[in-house]
Amino acid sequence: MTDDIGAFVPGPRVRIEGRAGGPLAGLTFAAKDLFDVAGVPTGGGNHDWPTGRPIPKNNAWAVQTLLDAGATLIGKTITDEVSLGILGENAFDGTPVNVRAPGRVPGGSSSGSAAAVAAGLCDTALGTDTGGSVRVPASFCGLHGIRPTHGRLDLSGMMPQAPTSDTTGWFARDAETFARVSGVLLGEAIPARLPTQLVVAVDAFGFADAEVAAALQPMVKRLAAVVGASREEIMAPPGLSVWARARRTLQPHEAYTTFRDWLDKGNPRFAFSVARALVMGSMIAETDRAWAGLMRQEARARMAYLLPPGTVLCLPTTPFPAPLRGQPLQVLDPLRDRITCLCAHGGLAGHPQVSLPGATVGGLPVGLSIVGPRGSDATLVAVAQAMEKAA
Amino acid sequence: MTDDIGAFVPGPRVRIEGRAGGPLAGLTFAAKDLFDVAGVPTGGGNHDWPTGRPIPKNNAWAVQTLLDAGATLIGKTITDEVSLGILGENAFDGTPVNVRAPGRVPGGSSSGSAAAVAAGLCDTALGTDTGGSVRVPASFCGLHGIRPTHGRLDLSGMMPQAPTSDTTGWFARDAETFARVSGVLLGEAIPARLPTQLVVAVDAFGFADAEVAAALQPMVKRLAAVVGASREEIMAPPGLSVWARARRTLQPHEAYTTFRDWLDKGNPRFAFSVARALVMGSMIAETDRAWAGLMRQEARARMAYLLPPGTVLCLPTTPFPAPLRGQPLQVLDPLRDRITCLCAHGGLAGHPQVSLPGATVGGLPVGLSIVGPRGSDATLVAVAQAMEKAA
Repeated sequence: MTDDIGAFVPGPRVRIEGRAGGPLAGLTFAAKDLFDVAGVPTGGGNHDWPTGRPIPKNNAWAVQTLLDAGATLIGKTITDEVSLGILGENAFDGTPVNVRAPGRVPGGSSSGSAAAVAAGLCDTALGTDTGGSVRVPASFCGLHGIRPTHGRLDLSGMMPQAPTSDTTGWFARDAETFARVSGVLLGEAIPARLPTQLVVAVDAFGFADAEVAAALQPMVKRLAAVVGASREEIMAPPGLSVWARARRTLQPHEAYTTFRDWLDKGNPRFAFSVARALVMGSMIAETDRAWAGLMRQEARARMAYLLPPGTVLCLPTTPFPAPLRGQPLQVLDPLRDRITCLCAHGGLAGHPQVSLPGATVGGLPVGLSIVGPRGSDATLVAVAQAMEKAA
Repeated sequence: MTDDIGAFVPGPRVRIEGRAGGPLAGLTFAAKDLFDVAGVPTGGGNHDWPTGRPIPKNNAWAVQTLLDAGATLIGKTITDEVSLGILGENAFDGTPVNVRAPGRVPGGSSSGSAAAVAAGLCDTALGTDTGGSVRVPASFCGLHGIRPTHGRLDLSGMMPQAPTSDTTGWFARDAETFARVSGVLLGEAIPARLPTQLVVAVDAFGFADAEVAAALQPMVKRLAAVVGASREEIMAPPGLSVWARARRTLQPHEAYTTFRDWLDKGNPRFAFSVARALVMGSMIAETDRAWAGLMRQEARARMAYLLPPGTVLCLPTTPFPAPLRGQPLQVLDPLRDRITCLCAHGGLAGHPQVSLPGATVGGLPVGLSIVGPRGSDATLVAVAQAMEKAA
């Protein structure tokens, strides 16, 4: 196993041994370069972000929690600039290799974390998910990946982007490791009891490439068998694209607000596409944000209605497998937009979501996602275990 | 004289001896890194611009013309990224030191060329002026600088930005050197005959800081004496700000069009402010450009009316001397806008303009500009000589 896949941030590799005897003893992990590690500048995927900022004195909560549980930190990983990106191509630090889909992007913004786990360089890795940044690379790299219930984990020491959507997530190759790590970070035992009702989001399956929907069908069948009962529903009655548009109204403006003072004082360097997202965010009118805020309320109500206790919803994590690396923006922009249509509910409603590996299209991984009621994170992990056992 | 003022592009310094015995024998010059030099990548002030482009096989016309006339090239100079900037702060290569105004910007985008001439590192230097990129640094660095009649010089080997406004210009510390270089690049002897009518642009003087208008009064008086007769006129009856707005409608869109394919395929890195200008340019509506095109026609008619043969118009080159380096965008953006109000006529109407040194405000240089009929470039240079003699 080579580690020359460009997953780690350039420079000396950080390593911190985990506490002896913890529940994660023997596991290794990496942390996206949005998480503070004491004594190491937090890069944020942008060469001008660390300038003038104090070097962190403390580890981020998620990093410290994994260390305390016995896992060993073996490096910080490349991220899309200031976590604004969904494909994993960083103009400053390069694009980590997706060993499961050679020549393809790893997905972002938690690109290096997903690539490192997929390549077997570590057992798990911390990412962040604001608009899909764990879910999408999990799908593209064939991994388990979780976006927890929004607001559940302590985000201290994690660089913010759009706080009303920001979450800390993580990846693993197999369900057992995923469950061990999840138990620690969720602070909750993984339950034995599974949901009893599966909702299949027909609009989301219809929106994905036909080959993706077909490739996921065996997993959907297995999931229905694991859960016991299933029915079809439209997830987003106004349209997945309408939810995506609301998301694209709220999140870029919130990101612009997060970074506004830095942009003003530092005039930092960005890839054109990243600067463009911030400029667009700066120009979103308050009236449009007010409309999108109402849509967010409606999306929350819809997801709560679809997901009473004991229910799990499934949808394709991404509408297609990983696109080719190095394509022009006019090719990538519509792909980004389509991805957002399948990810928007996460940031809008804040429900927990796990992307499960197990399907491929033309040899390329693509994930099936399960979404649960708010707070049901550990139950989703239990479903992931049951799915792996049933495979 | 140190040359450690950050005026030259990083890396090995290019040097090409001028042809022996030419009219510029003994002079040295530098070229803004928008001009091709055979065998040297043209940087364009942006680290991603040279990627994938062939290394120039030929010298740019202006470089070759100076070499043929006997001047020796001693280096390529820093420019604002892809010539989009008016202050001379480059996030990749740094900000050249303005020896005439320590702690202040040199002006841009021909920042390194102006800084190098001001510091005495060379006798003259090539710049480009699309929206003020020679005139502004000439004013801030206390130099002679010319924006020639648009369309007059051969621009081959000069990186374009907005072709309907792009020009090749140059700097010198004294009028005699300025005249020698101008004679060669204009391909025309500097005439003895001077204009006979001076038009003082009262709106432009009113728009400048009161201290600047006052500091320029002795030069205006001297100019009136040199020319013989003067009268006051409004240069821009609809308003300098209206002309500036038309300019800000036409030029950024044209620049975006110039770079669109590169942005799409290369997703290059820029300082935020530069990317922002390109994004804004991409969003300008055709209806707004149509309006601005009509305004440009009107501005051309107005400038032609004001400048019949034998006439010269004067205005402050910039509304203030060089601002402090390293200020936030919210401070710099309004300054850029004000500068545009005094520079917009150049790109709109294409008349030749020379900025003359000789005034200071609080010890900081500020230039007086003279504008002539199209094609009267050499006459403006003659006026510069007469002004220096009369000082």
